[in-house]
Amino acid sequence: MYFDAVLESMLPKGVKDFLPGKALKIAYLDRTLHDTFTRWCFRPILPPSLEYLHVLEKGLGEGLREKTFRFDDRQSGRLVAFPPDITPQVARIVATRMREVPLPLRLCYSGRVLRHTEQQAGKDREIFQAGVELIGLESPEADAEMIAMAVECLTLLGAGEFTIDIGQVEFFRGVMAELPVSGRLAHEVQLAISRKDLSGLQSLLAQAPLTERAREEILALPRLFGGREVLARADAVVTNDRSRRALDNLYRVLEILEVYNIEKHVTFDLGELRGLDYHTGIIFQGYLPGLGRAVCSGGRYDGLTARYGSPAPATGFAFNLLNLLFALDRQLDQSAGQHSDILIFQAGSDKEPAQRLAQSLRQRGYSVARDMIPRDEEASIAYALKMNFRYILISGETEQEVRLLRLADHTERRLPYQAVLAPDFIL
Amino acid sequence: MYFDAVLESMLPKGVKDFLPGKALKIAYLDRTLHDTFTRWCFRPILPPSLEYLHVLEKGLGEGLREKTFRFDDRQSGRLVAFPPDITPQVARIVATRMREVPLPLRLCYSGRVLRHTEQQAGKDREIFQAGVELIGLESPEADAEMIAMAVECLTLLGAGEFTIDIGQVEFFRGVMAELPVSGRLAHEVQLAISRKDLSGLQSLLAQAPLTERAREEILALPRLFGGREVLARADAVVTNDRSRRALDNLYRVLEILEVYNIEKHVTFDLGELRGLDYHTGIIFQGYLPGLGRAVCSGGRYDGLTARYGSPAPATGFAFNLLNLLFALDRQLDQSAGQHSDILIFQAGSDKEPAQRLAQSLRQRGYSVARDMIPRDEEASIAYALKMNFRYILISGETEQEVRLLRLADHTERRLPYQAVLAPDFIL
Repeated sequence: MYFDAVLESMLPKGVKDFLPGKALKIAYLDRTLHDTFTRWCFRPILPPSLEYLHVLEKGLGEGLREKTFRFDDRQSGRLVAFPPDITPQVARIVATRMREVPLPLRLCYSGRVLRHTEQQAGKDREIFQAGVELIGLESPEADAEMIAMAVECLTLLGAGEFTIDIGQVEFFRGVMAELPVSGRLAHEVQLAISRKDLSGLQSLLAQAPLTERAREEILALPRLFGGREVLARADAVVTNDRSRRALDNLYRVLEILEVYNIEKHVTFDLGELRGLDYHTGIIFQGYLPGLGRAVCSGGRYDGLTARYGSPAPATGFAFNLLNLLFALDRQLDQSAGQHSDILIFQAGSDKEPAQRLAQSLRQRGYSVARDMIPRDEEASIAYALKMNFRYILISGETEQEVRLLRLADHTERRLPYQAVLAPDFIL
Repeated sequence: MYFDAVLESMLPKGVKDFLPGKALKIAYLDRTLHDTFTRWCFRPILPPSLEYLHVLEKGLGEGLREKTFRFDDRQSGRLVAFPPDITPQVARIVATRMREVPLPLRLCYSGRVLRHTEQQAGKDREIFQAGVELIGLESPEADAEMIAMAVECLTLLGAGEFTIDIGQVEFFRGVMAELPVSGRLAHEVQLAISRKDLSGLQSLLAQAPLTERAREEILALPRLFGGREVLARADAVVTNDRSRRALDNLYRVLEILEVYNIEKHVTFDLGELRGLDYHTGIIFQGYLPGLGRAVCSGGRYDGLTARYGSPAPATGFAFNLLNLLFALDRQLDQSAGQHSDILIFQAGSDKEPAQRLAQSLRQRGYSVARDMIPRDEEASIAYALKMNFRYILISGETEQEVRLLRLADHTERRLPYQAVLAPDFIL
């Protein structure tokens, strides 16, 4: 048959179909995050899924530009693109359409972006994001608010153990600025640092004319990860102004996180440059046990809205919903509500009583479907079990009574028809 | 300046940015529809926003094929597309990945599709849809369930007056099959019927060799719209079997709608073929006063899953969220919750009490932000008013007390700090 053998090849690589089991969990993640963002007074914004490439590219660094889906728009004759990232779209909207709105602005979004990936298997090209942007504040308090929100979201989603790993691109750049080389060697030095390859780094630095101070600072980078003691270690070894200002910023953020009482979730990695090209200060990523990919990431980006004509300091972060789904799959079995409440089976041929029951129960907030296929009670019960109903209601056997069967344990109640229609009926 | 003059041209035609005012309303529409679908036991499904063109096209008629955004996928080297319609994707998934799940299947979705449009101004290319598919039932009850759900959704959204306009593609096709011509003339006849252009239709039919019966049936079509009396009028004039079976189906659906007590919202138009190419029976569209575009549309499509290898009868419909937004904009001002609850202004330099207040109030479910910009109370109040906060809470003036100012009428309460932190605090 056509469809059996080629099921796998029916979809382009890197995108997936989500059937109800997973789709319910994604919807639950999305709603929980949105509700949390709302409690922090972030309001939704909805950028389009189509943009002119030349407009979008203003907000993208080299890395994301390469990954952007682009094509000719037959209507305008220009190149259009599907956004690989929503933050630059928000920056564009804030800088052009919201210039009259007083700062700070708290905005949130939820959507899908597309990114080309390398040929490697299993990497998502369609990425589900839900995130926030806090625009107009330069203070460490704003950065701390992002981290506190990430922690609150993960806690609400049932992630018991998790880590928010904090970096500072200015700290890193301050140290790297002392390396008097550029091009390929500089790139290899960066790679060695992020691989935490100390001996490789040492031999690379041997090729560069460096002061002993600078050499020490660079060699320290791969080891500057761990708990809050990392800040003291960085303090002892790093002397350049740019890095020291960044370090000071980190201390102040940590102080605020202590008031939030969430410093136990925080680790530092000052030798990693994992942010996007537009980041300009603190960056962070959230990790759950057993998953190498981050479930959320973000940071400060003070230069992005200026690219669209209106400078403003800004910070933000986004969750990757599919990574969350993967890490929390089992916890979400309970919370994401996989059950429907009641399937109504109607014994006689008169549909009206069953229809009235359904309507009335739905008005009380229960999820109710009627079994419309002509079949016997046993077959209907089998269907209800397979489709995750909690109860089956058998109507039409007598005019006065219905039977309510709880499918978990097959206990049965006989109830007057009128009692089920009553406003105070409780399942 | 770069951005002032060209603001309009920053986005491709047919797509829009939605700022918080509208985005909140779209989110409210989406959530209300999703919750209603859930109460009818429809479970979400999430197809990807990227498909192989040749797979997607199996499920698209000529009309939508032309409107599909397509381009080369540099990873697979094949043509890929952005779906212009979600129903064919659901049909594919059901036919290929859900063949073991017992029927009927109740599935819902919410997403954006892209469609090329003609150059005419103002037409959306990005369409926000939320819809349901009921797969595996051939009965009029299933069709009636779709219409009853549409009515319930519109009622819950606050649409007081609205119309569900019902057609039947088989009725129309039965009459048109009697026209012994095809090609251009047949197409012009269809156009004249849908324009309800009787004299044009008469002169077109004069060119065709027709029996008197057939001529009468075709000439009746443009007048077969209105209340339920339309069915009786159709009954009197139409004799071909195919149309009579379709009419019988309409009668049976109407009977069920009367049990739902929603027949007052229903009108009929048997001379209109507004469904998509895959429709095979009843079709319907929902209209609100003052808006010519439908807010929802759908119908029976019994042949679609078979195109993916697994035949099943099916019916479904989808809301167009932007048309809903346009029609219900004012009603949604109230329901979509444009306000945040509390802005906390901190008078002293100690941030900790304000932070604790914020944390505690959020745990009670209130939406709370802290004003982090150094400014005076007056400026903070002005900001809170502009940003739609309901209250401003002034903390830090004394250690024991806070002031709670209701912004609607500037009434003020003095409250002990500890009382606001208490679990039973109510705003």
